[in-house]
Amino acid sequence: MNHIHWKDACLFVLDQRELPRRRVFLRCKDASSVARAIRDMALRGAPLIGGAAAYGYALAAKSLDGGPRAVHPRRRWERVLSRAERELRRSRPTAVNLAHALERMRARSREILSGPPLGSAQLLRRLKAEADAFFQEDVRANRRMAELGARLLPRGARVLTYCNAGALATCGLGTALGVILRAWRAGRVRHVYACETRPYLQGSRLTLWELMEAGVPCTLITDNMAAHLMATERLDAVLVGADRIAANADTANKIGTYGLAILARHHGVPFYVAAPSTSVDPRARNGRAIPIEKRSAREVVEIRGVPIAPRGARALHPAFDVTPHALITAVITERGVARPPNGRTLRRLLPPGARS
Amino acid sequence: MNHIHWKDACLFVLDQRELPRRRVFLRCKDASSVARAIRDMALRGAPLIGGAAAYGYALAAKSLDGGPRAVHPRRRWERVLSRAERELRRSRPTAVNLAHALERMRARSREILSGPPLGSAQLLRRLKAEADAFFQEDVRANRRMAELGARLLPRGARVLTYCNAGALATCGLGTALGVILRAWRAGRVRHVYACETRPYLQGSRLTLWELMEAGVPCTLITDNMAAHLMATERLDAVLVGADRIAANADTANKIGTYGLAILARHHGVPFYVAAPSTSVDPRARNGRAIPIEKRSAREVVEIRGVPIAPRGARALHPAFDVTPHALITAVITERGVARPPNGRTLRRLLPPGARS
Repeated sequence: MNHIHWKDACLFVLDQRELPRRRVFLRCKDASSVARAIRDMALRGAPLIGGAAAYGYALAAKSLDGGPRAVHPRRRWERVLSRAERELRRSRPTAVNLAHALERMRARSREILSGPPLGSAQLLRRLKAEADAFFQEDVRANRRMAELGARLLPRGARVLTYCNAGALATCGLGTALGVILRAWRAGRVRHVYACETRPYLQGSRLTLWELMEAGVPCTLITDNMAAHLMATERLDAVLVGADRIAANADTANKIGTYGLAILARHHGVPFYVAAPSTSVDPRARNGRAIPIEKRSAREVVEIRGVPIAPRGARALHPAFDVTPHALITAVITERGVARPPNGRTLRRLLPPGARS
Repeated sequence: MNHIHWKDACLFVLDQRELPRRRVFLRCKDASSVARAIRDMALRGAPLIGGAAAYGYALAAKSLDGGPRAVHPRRRWERVLSRAERELRRSRPTAVNLAHALERMRARSREILSGPPLGSAQLLRRLKAEADAFFQEDVRANRRMAELGARLLPRGARVLTYCNAGALATCGLGTALGVILRAWRAGRVRHVYACETRPYLQGSRLTLWELMEAGVPCTLITDNMAAHLMATERLDAVLVGADRIAANADTANKIGTYGLAILARHHGVPFYVAAPSTSVDPRARNGRAIPIEKRSAREVVEIRGVPIAPRGARALHPAFDVTPHALITAVITERGVARPPNGRTLRRLLPPGARS
């Protein structure tokens, strides 16, 4: 059963905060509950946030009362849909896939609403079909990225990954972890190291779980062991995902990615970003234009409800950081590899309409 | 009440694993229980390990039965003391202060035993006096380091520290944190950031506690936020302690220190090591000669008994790493500042007997 799936006109979301302890699904019956699941990190990962937001938008078609057969004028639908769009858009600021998904759903809803007046069930069905298409495109993009990325790794590679850029972060088999899994199946990867990724521990809870489920030889490290690992063991590549890639290829990803890129450069280890082209934001000129989400300090001073700092301790919690493109060896997208990544090489990979 | 103190012919050790939740003292009545407290990290910090080991050695004087007035031949005492020495020496391999403390106690015990045969109470009293002297030297060294180090910081400094190099890690007011506290009292420090320091969280549990007790404005970050902090905020210095400094000034310290030094260099932030001259090991030519303790993977995959990774997950746990001297701006000792730190500048600071 997929970690997000549609059933009985609801979106069911695997609550990733509970992994690997237990598998609990949240039932989201409207756009608000999808927005809440995104904001509270029940699901995370830029491409998956995009997919879930598309379904959340579709669920807004259930907001008008009068039963599934009642027909409503275009203006009422538009109001309902734009309210849902605003709520979903606000749920998390950094991943641009969310904005892309909502723009696409809005465009589709305009087409649909320009026809004859519709009832709730009809609109829901048609918007859900669009969300399905968006979801499937990510599945295909993952597959293609995995093919392109796997070729970049040498035979017998020992790689390091960060946060979770696997199936749980996307609609398909993952971005960075998709590349690693594909390369492993082709016999190109010997060992995978995963950083635990404080404070949310996506690496130890999610990435290690995905790797162990797939039978890939893997070892957990705390984030602060990466430099020592690079200095004392051969490492062939670092692979990470992305939450938003600016036009010049500066890349926002989970907090800690930037430091890891500096360490990789210091040790001469190639540093790859794998992300679908929907993670590129051509309107952001460079990394400074990417908004960095600040989350609660509580998520730092407690681990699973257990306090790890004195009462009243202050903490920072930027959820992301920006890696300048100069520290990135290549950006792997489903439309090709930008190497070295910069405004020119990245722009060539985007569909003409997206080269704003 | 000091975090290690002597009472009723026993060493009482504050169990730092329980901080900041509660204050529990372990009563160590013999050398073995001191060795266990060191090995299990009830106490930690290279200088404090040295101090505790000195008292542990003294406690071996209680091992021979026959009551406190029974007199034993020299040979029997030597056997007892060298067994205690071996056990204490094995407790943790990286901090050289432990070896220094034991060598000094052994030398003193030889002097004492070369006199007339002694009873348990007499030997204990005289060895304990030597441990007291060793302890007080660290107290004085801390004070002097704080004076020398504080001068290196600009007025209004914003500094970052790692692990715990405070009072809890030493016999006095601390090494790196001693410098910071001294500079703060002199109005030179505006704000202190502390890395949480996975997996043992000495930063969030101990350093933040010490800073908050002293009223110093401080903020906790996860280890992986350091690069982002350096890129987005002004930072005037990184200050860390040391577990062992090789003859060429390569420095072993808590895992993660090496990565932090690379990040500091990348951002042009001065990186200081503060440590007593007892942390220098002139017999280790460079960092490669320093043994790096490997601890249990369980300490990585669980946080306070709560699993954070799938059952059966493998993890690395090197407890220390080595920072090459080229990445260190200066080494601050109680005998002066080595700047830039290298074999020559460091050797000049050592007492003639220690320049092996």
